[in-house]
Amino acid sequence: MKAITYAHAHSERFVEELKAFLRIPSVSTREEHARDIQRAAEWLKTRLLEAGFPRAEVLPTPRHPVVYAEWLEAGPDAPTVLIYGHYDVQPPDPLELWETPPFEPTVRGDDVFARGASDDKGQAYIYVKAVEAFHETAGRPPVNLKCVFEGEEEIGSPSLPDFIREHRDLLAADVAAISDTHILGKDAPSIVYALRGMAYVEVEVTGPGADLHSGIYGGAVHNPIHALCEMIAQLHDADGRITIPGFYDRVRELTPAERAEMAKMPFDREAWLEETGASTDWGESAYTIVERASARPTLDVNGIWGGYIEKGAKTVLPSKAYAKISMRLVPDQQPDEIAGLIEAYLLESAPPTVAVTVTKLHGGPSAIVRRDSPAMQAASRAYTEVFDKTPVFVREGGSIPVVTTFQQVLGIDTILLGFGLPDDRLHSPNEKFHLPNFHRGIETVIRFLTHYGDEA
Amino acid sequence: MKAITYAHAHSERFVEELKAFLRIPSVSTREEHARDIQRAAEWLKTRLLEAGFPRAEVLPTPRHPVVYAEWLEAGPDAPTVLIYGHYDVQPPDPLELWETPPFEPTVRGDDVFARGASDDKGQAYIYVKAVEAFHETAGRPPVNLKCVFEGEEEIGSPSLPDFIREHRDLLAADVAAISDTHILGKDAPSIVYALRGMAYVEVEVTGPGADLHSGIYGGAVHNPIHALCEMIAQLHDADGRITIPGFYDRVRELTPAERAEMAKMPFDREAWLEETGASTDWGESAYTIVERASARPTLDVNGIWGGYIEKGAKTVLPSKAYAKISMRLVPDQQPDEIAGLIEAYLLESAPPTVAVTVTKLHGGPSAIVRRDSPAMQAASRAYTEVFDKTPVFVREGGSIPVVTTFQQVLGIDTILLGFGLPDDRLHSPNEKFHLPNFHRGIETVIRFLTHYGDEA
Repeated sequence: MKAITYAHAHSERFVEELKAFLRIPSVSTREEHARDIQRAAEWLKTRLLEAGFPRAEVLPTPRHPVVYAEWLEAGPDAPTVLIYGHYDVQPPDPLELWETPPFEPTVRGDDVFARGASDDKGQAYIYVKAVEAFHETAGRPPVNLKCVFEGEEEIGSPSLPDFIREHRDLLAADVAAISDTHILGKDAPSIVYALRGMAYVEVEVTGPGADLHSGIYGGAVHNPIHALCEMIAQLHDADGRITIPGFYDRVRELTPAERAEMAKMPFDREAWLEETGASTDWGESAYTIVERASARPTLDVNGIWGGYIEKGAKTVLPSKAYAKISMRLVPDQQPDEIAGLIEAYLLESAPPTVAVTVTKLHGGPSAIVRRDSPAMQAASRAYTEVFDKTPVFVREGGSIPVVTTFQQVLGIDTILLGFGLPDDRLHSPNEKFHLPNFHRGIETVIRFLTHYGDEA
Repeated sequence: MKAITYAHAHSERFVEELKAFLRIPSVSTREEHARDIQRAAEWLKTRLLEAGFPRAEVLPTPRHPVVYAEWLEAGPDAPTVLIYGHYDVQPPDPLELWETPPFEPTVRGDDVFARGASDDKGQAYIYVKAVEAFHETAGRPPVNLKCVFEGEEEIGSPSLPDFIREHRDLLAADVAAISDTHILGKDAPSIVYALRGMAYVEVEVTGPGADLHSGIYGGAVHNPIHALCEMIAQLHDADGRITIPGFYDRVRELTPAERAEMAKMPFDREAWLEETGASTDWGESAYTIVERASARPTLDVNGIWGGYIEKGAKTVLPSKAYAKISMRLVPDQQPDEIAGLIEAYLLESAPPTVAVTVTKLHGGPSAIVRRDSPAMQAASRAYTEVFDKTPVFVREGGSIPVVTTFQQVLGIDTILLGFGLPDDRLHSPNEKFHLPNFHRGIETVIRFLTHYGDEA
């Protein structure tokens, strides 16, 4: 393909451009970097125009702008791919642990070290260069393209959902593509085809009307911390299975084919234990660790508090105790229904000595992309050709909120074309991006768009 | 008795003096009141000298001074009573809820309203006036007297235990007397004859080596909050009985006579529920609410925390979870032994997926005074004569640390001669002291010291 030949020929310049991108300290959480955020957005817009996008704009949001670009020359019959990435980065602290300054990108060996190298400037810039390669060779892309690059990902994307809702028509597409994840290893390509959903609730248990003296009322007034602990202890059985009635009713069981695929994932239990610092694993014995952590629904108390939690001793029998509880959901569990089930169960299992309220904090459905969809097939074929190895289909245990928003607002699936590596040190000192993956990423995206244009 | 006649004759002046004491804002927790603390100590010392104590001194401690006084004219064969009180007070906030200013003592009806009126200036000053009455009439007290008035009670008496240890010989006595509690009602005298002890531990449960992402590790790494909740849930059975093996082994069971005495206490379950704000009572069904809250050993989690406890949602699987657990002990449970038992039980009941450490924060033995001891008999007789009603012997659910210190360092029992009332609003706006109890208190103390001198 001419575009690939072009990309190979200009790879050095592409790296220099990426380094210029990485030099802009676009830290979204810090007010003093507001101008850098603006500068990064403008820089990216200019590069998109240079790459051949006829339209590229910096669109305001209540906080940091979205860079939008489109290239619709493939015509109304060709499919449209919506590309998402982010140009903001995490703060670089602690600075003293960086071997070279975080905003002076430095190439050592095959890696470029800088804040944002892998998360997500390096991966986002792949699309800009892939489009340039099309533009400079074939003259036009094989599919229509729309790009959304946001500047608030590292602060939880507060403006993005509204932005997508307000620009629903502008962003209409057939499928989304995001490169903001990692593959299993340098020569182990993988494609995330499922993300878990979430139901997150906060529980408040009220015992007495006010904090009491435990020496005067203890033993005769039920302590809400005890009640809460009893309720939480009942949420799992001895095998780590969640006991909420109906919780598993809608769980789409893993197929033997999926389980076989997951079993192919390189997994080293000892390394995993070392990575977590846990003495042993835990949870549903009928499932492997990989399955439990990515393909099974789970429940975790993310926070608990009540009574006196400062240094020293105080003999309070508190009025209230609290817990934050999140559940990771899999197809076809519904967040609202699950939040309702845990609420009912907690209310039912609460002793008559306390009052319980359950507040839904947020939720989002799980996402699963058919592995035989045209876009997924195109992605798989592209990875296979570039990495010379068939990608493993993996499930991701977490959620990527924008994937949910795309699904809910635009009604489209997302293909997660990750090019990072597990040891890229995202959010940590000495973040890096493996440059061969930058180049392979550009080639993979060129092939993905081409195959998708052919197949769709 | 001449001393009583004298006290009656001078009752109005006594109240005016108490009001002067109450005007000094000796708030021990506030740095800006340091001079008021000093002023209150000096004021009290002067009143003690005027009352006839040949020796009265303001003795320094690392923070607020102790006022010490002695009157040893009863001779070496007479018993010695060590009087304890405190001249510091709680902060008056919230000021706007006071009907009259907290440091402008105001008499309304039979009550004097001011911060510290009942806790403890009014009750402490009873002893000064009782001694004056002896001095101005009999010329000498019937027993030897030593007084310790501290200025740090409301901040937890940080200097007092060392002070007592360092002045062990100076403070040597046969029995201690404290008026810093309340009787059951205006015409319902009572004597506290037992205080519960304490064993206080902090539990740390460690799961993974660092905080993990619950979306990536949840379901496969045991969450230490779950483990801690399971361990806490196991500490009580369904009847509220503590399940720690051996916990009840040394408990001296209540005698039928004690239970009959306790059953005489006026107790209104509905009023108690209203007071606590609890919907119903809880705990060992074989014991009454009064018995559970004062004469049975109890266990309360006073604080619990782990994970994310701020506003909103965060999906952390925390490395650690903590709880503070206190146990109220009764004779003959030993604090160190009980702390050892809970430590062993928690370590044993912890799942193999977590590591548990138990730290002993502090402890103190329970105290029980023989109801047939000479001092107790003298106190009972004094109350009966003054209130025209036999006092009820009650057990107090809490601990009074100085009682434990007197027991441990000086080897003496304490008689708790309370003259407050349950509705005195200690630590709250509109604190008051019932003036008839001030006068009756002076008479009761005169009679107590006289009877004790006669009987001992």
